[in-house]
Amino acid sequence: MKPVAVIGCGAIGQGWAILFAHRGIAVRLFDVSAAAAERAVERIAVSLSDLCGEHGFMGSDAVQARISVYGSMAEAVEGVFYVQECVPENVSLKTRTFVDIAALTDKEVILASSCSSILPDAFLEHPRFRERCIVAHPFSPPHLIPLVEIVTSSWTSEATVDAVRCLLTSIGQRPIVLRKPVPGYVVNRLQAAVIAESLALVREEVISPQDLDTCMKDGLGRRWAFMGPFQTMDLNSAGGFQEYVNKFYADGYRAICSDLKVHEPWSPRAIDAVEHWRREEVRDEKALALRRRWRDQMLLAIGQFLRDADDRSRTS
Amino acid sequence: MKPVAVIGCGAIGQGWAILFAHRGIAVRLFDVSAAAAERAVERIAVSLSDLCGEHGFMGSDAVQARISVYGSMAEAVEGVFYVQECVPENVSLKTRTFVDIAALTDKEVILASSCSSILPDAFLEHPRFRERCIVAHPFSPPHLIPLVEIVTSSWTSEATVDAVRCLLTSIGQRPIVLRKPVPGYVVNRLQAAVIAESLALVREEVISPQDLDTCMKDGLGRRWAFMGPFQTMDLNSAGGFQEYVNKFYADGYRAICSDLKVHEPWSPRAIDAVEHWRREEVRDEKALALRRRWRDQMLLAIGQFLRDADDRSRTS
Repeated sequence: MKPVAVIGCGAIGQGWAILFAHRGIAVRLFDVSAAAAERAVERIAVSLSDLCGEHGFMGSDAVQARISVYGSMAEAVEGVFYVQECVPENVSLKTRTFVDIAALTDKEVILASSCSSILPDAFLEHPRFRERCIVAHPFSPPHLIPLVEIVTSSWTSEATVDAVRCLLTSIGQRPIVLRKPVPGYVVNRLQAAVIAESLALVREEVISPQDLDTCMKDGLGRRWAFMGPFQTMDLNSAGGFQEYVNKFYADGYRAICSDLKVHEPWSPRAIDAVEHWRREEVRDEKALALRRRWRDQMLLAIGQFLRDADDRSRTS
Repeated sequence: MKPVAVIGCGAIGQGWAILFAHRGIAVRLFDVSAAAAERAVERIAVSLSDLCGEHGFMGSDAVQARISVYGSMAEAVEGVFYVQECVPENVSLKTRTFVDIAALTDKEVILASSCSSILPDAFLEHPRFRERCIVAHPFSPPHLIPLVEIVTSSWTSEATVDAVRCLLTSIGQRPIVLRKPVPGYVVNRLQAAVIAESLALVREEVISPQDLDTCMKDGLGRRWAFMGPFQTMDLNSAGGFQEYVNKFYADGYRAICSDLKVHEPWSPRAIDAVEHWRREEVRDEKALALRRRWRDQMLLAIGQFLRDADDRSRTS
């Protein structure tokens, strides 16, 4: 199998590299900063040594051996079948990067962006053979969260959508395709709604930041780890989704929805309160890095747990 | 230890009964419909037999033996130290029920409502010794989701809050206390924001109902099962929460938030689309009941998984 290239070596690029390499695909890394690329290789090594072992990740040496740094973009994309762009979220930088990558690659090479918020038409108009350009937006960290949002530009071909969906599925990801682009795509809109309302509730002194987080992790998040909001509603009324809506919308959710504060600006006072709580819990960058390793181990374990549960429910 | 009474024997009452009985507390059930109370006992037996065994639930016979049905409210609340009210969500019914229970119990008996949306002052003004009345709002199903929202009326005493918090913690729940009541309390406001935006995205044909659910379960829900939204943000930037806000608010979330559709009425067309998908997946009430058993087994397993992971991270 041909290699893939990952352009831009921050946390998202590192995650994509681990993901491809773990599935046996050689990864060619490039970053405009040679130092950033070298640092990425070191961080990938740390991530792999944290994650290998009991949870079914293959040996870290074999994965690491598939990842190489290249000194120029031309060398990095030489002979690849797929490029995952992971440069910072900036429209002119993404525009330029795509034109450059396209100039260096044949028309059958797929060029995917990790872009999380810029609409595809804003930066995918100018590359050569632009029908092979697409957005494949992962979540953080990409090698531990399966969801990928696929978003097309006005020029993206159906064949490109199919090829990306197929590739991502083959490496264990769960791609979904947006039928039309909207600001924030889908996932970050849902996340934005939750964050905005959460900050408003802290601002209004309805709840402490810590208790707000508890509401999610010991309440809603338990269900949402394995069922989306619609299936959750479907199972919360004997007759299913429509009955749930009939029971709870007019006399419940309608009034709640009209009272939500999601359109209000994030309050500096609420932000201070959250930051204060977080720094009490996790003091500084060093402690945050450790906590992030705990998060990644939890995500790996929960992923394994959900896969096993899925297998069990298929066989039972 | 004295028994507790559960007044109202629907799904929520059944869950509370299992929860208390599982922790060794005798439960006295009452429902105005004797048939409903008998049906509840049968359903509790089914739930217990589904849940006992490998996941650490104690033998179902021992739990079931602690649960008894009483023919009148007076008999049910005789000698209890705590009453959990679970009658339908109706302000005049809840008002009357609390006055009745209060008349039958001494002033040191705590009276808690499972109310999910009515503000406490609207139905807790008139009971005798109203300082011992409070809202303890569980999630569905109560015996498998630890979160409980405690909401006080203007008359609730601090001693009552402390006693309820202490009792719920001792039976393995995670109570949080709202500092002031708001429509929907906290959790259902967050859920309302997600549902409203999800339906708007389906209405706008941005995404299919199925893919929307995938966005939650294979994306956001993975993290939210063990971290709230604030800790998630804290770990998504090297410098923590404040840095995350600095990086992503002005150029990202602000625009997304102003575009959210959460205040718009739920669209009938979107509701139809979701219902159509759900009935393709799970055809009728019988299939829904089976699917609900799968949900409960998943919740039990994920609860066990999270407790084990928590123990591991404490000891490591």
